[in-house]
Amino acid sequence: MKNYKPKSRLAAEEYINGILRGDRVILSRAITVIESNLDSDKKLAKEIVQMILPHSGNSIRIGITGVPGVGKSTFIETFGKHLINEGFRVAILSIDPSSQRSKGSILGDKTRMEELANLEEAYIRPSASGDTLGGVANKTGETLLLCEAAGYDVILIETVGVGQSETAVHGMTDFFLLLMLSGAGDELQGIKKGIMEMADMVVINKADGDNIRMSEMARLQYQNALHIFPQSESGWSPVVSTASAIKNMGISNVWDEITKFKKLVDKNGYFLKNRNHQQIQWMYNNINEELKRLFYGSKNIKSHLAILEKEIVSAKISPVKAAQKIIEEFKASF
Amino acid sequence: MKNYKPKSRLAAEEYINGILRGDRVILSRAITVIESNLDSDKKLAKEIVQMILPHSGNSIRIGITGVPGVGKSTFIETFGKHLINEGFRVAILSIDPSSQRSKGSILGDKTRMEELANLEEAYIRPSASGDTLGGVANKTGETLLLCEAAGYDVILIETVGVGQSETAVHGMTDFFLLLMLSGAGDELQGIKKGIMEMADMVVINKADGDNIRMSEMARLQYQNALHIFPQSESGWSPVVSTASAIKNMGISNVWDEITKFKKLVDKNGYFLKNRNHQQIQWMYNNINEELKRLFYGSKNIKSHLAILEKEIVSAKISPVKAAQKIIEEFKASF
Repeated sequence: MKNYKPKSRLAAEEYINGILRGDRVILSRAITVIESNLDSDKKLAKEIVQMILPHSGNSIRIGITGVPGVGKSTFIETFGKHLINEGFRVAILSIDPSSQRSKGSILGDKTRMEELANLEEAYIRPSASGDTLGGVANKTGETLLLCEAAGYDVILIETVGVGQSETAVHGMTDFFLLLMLSGAGDELQGIKKGIMEMADMVVINKADGDNIRMSEMARLQYQNALHIFPQSESGWSPVVSTASAIKNMGISNVWDEITKFKKLVDKNGYFLKNRNHQQIQWMYNNINEELKRLFYGSKNIKSHLAILEKEIVSAKISPVKAAQKIIEEFKASF
Repeated sequence: MKNYKPKSRLAAEEYINGILRGDRVILSRAITVIESNLDSDKKLAKEIVQMILPHSGNSIRIGITGVPGVGKSTFIETFGKHLINEGFRVAILSIDPSSQRSKGSILGDKTRMEELANLEEAYIRPSASGDTLGGVANKTGETLLLCEAAGYDVILIETVGVGQSETAVHGMTDFFLLLMLSGAGDELQGIKKGIMEMADMVVINKADGDNIRMSEMARLQYQNALHIFPQSESGWSPVVSTASAIKNMGISNVWDEITKFKKLVDKNGYFLKNRNHQQIQWMYNNINEELKRLFYGSKNIKSHLAILEKEIVSAKISPVKAAQKIIEEFKASF
């Protein structure tokens, strides 16, 4: 594959120039290069990202999560249109490592946000595919940089609130928004442990019609509950509000809160500090994933581990000794 | 150091025999071997642990955390005496990787639990020292196995609720208990993010005298708040209660809840499943820590990383590219 170069590729400079002048077609083609698994594309993608870096960073990055059924598409459509009315350009990305298996439940179908998709000021890109969360996160993280360089002021990164991808999204955004429903069976709503603690804001969606009273009760309950969480390093206390995306109620309030947040973290220095921390952490995530790949990718190691697991469960070997044995095997393999 | 063997060491079989007949002096000497950093002791420790494995596991392992000032020592003393009255033998360990720096704030001084320490049915062992959390966790985890083989039915593992050691304790215990205070300034009380979600039970301590009403309010608040957490895999819903260790109120209730928990997880299979999972995870924790040590322990890598961090922050190199560069350097070093 090494020598195959897709005909339709441009030189790195051409992508950069196109992106910087806001050319959506070139932007999309550059993202295609970033998402590609061809060796020649990977090399080209690295060049593009390297050259785009100094032009990136000028946006607010917002993570949005919530389980299926919470009305995420409608929320993003209404919220996105509100932002555009306020004069912003909005890019919408998503992380969903499982999208191939689950047949692309999020952003797979642009028609879900038809009105937004037709606006010049909106750019919607479905999730990159990939086997590992790390790989998908890399692609989304780099796509984000390209969108910033193309002049999008607000980047929304969507994820489904049921897996591990929330941590990845939290690690690449400035503000984390959790969508919930009032009284949907119970309080759990399929949200994984730890996600609640990442939220800078919880929005009870579908707070309309007969649902208004229940939503207000849910709002109070969450607001009280969030009080018991430790204070975030940002100095921001998470807020809870109600909204109805379909009726366009409570949407401007979400943006107001994000604006307040941005003012606070600009002033106290957390915004820049967190951005720097995230960039550095991104490197370490890649390093640690590659170290694990080096080790766990070995066929011998894999079969040996399966045996050791059984021996541990039957108390034939201690976990510490098992680890030492296999690490010695790994070292000897070099 | 390899050929130096401390005079006072016994043969592995002698430790095993002593431990199995419940000899506290031999148990303590065996733990000293486990905590030692001498190469000869490390070899001996491995033999001891290997031989003790089939005799371990017969206890309920309880993690107890809470910030300094919450009354942890008094709680453990009262709770421990209650358990002994109920006919159990109780071992009390601790994890505190920072104990050397902070001058041993937990269990460093046995006199904190003077009455308990004087009982034949109690065994108190201060925290092992060490540089890394992983190292300390290994030592505490192995000490736990020895205590079980020595016939202790309940193992309490104490930790200070302000650092990372809670995850380690949570990973080696069956039941996780969080001590809190009512209205101590506010709801935060210095507890780190994520700890609340690990709790199987929250006890509002010092619920006596003028504090009773406030404690009951705190109990309700926490109980409501815990409802919004996702259900634990154990099938157990966390409970919140009030207690006064100093007045010996609400202590038997804590044990009642733990007994209920044990019945539930024995019946639904979670107890054994979780134990097996923890043992296997213990191996993987050791492997992953050693992989990181191999990489980050290299002096060249370290200085290169410091440069790369600066280049990332100044947008000179992308995080993904930086990671690739240094991984290539690592591979070439073999």
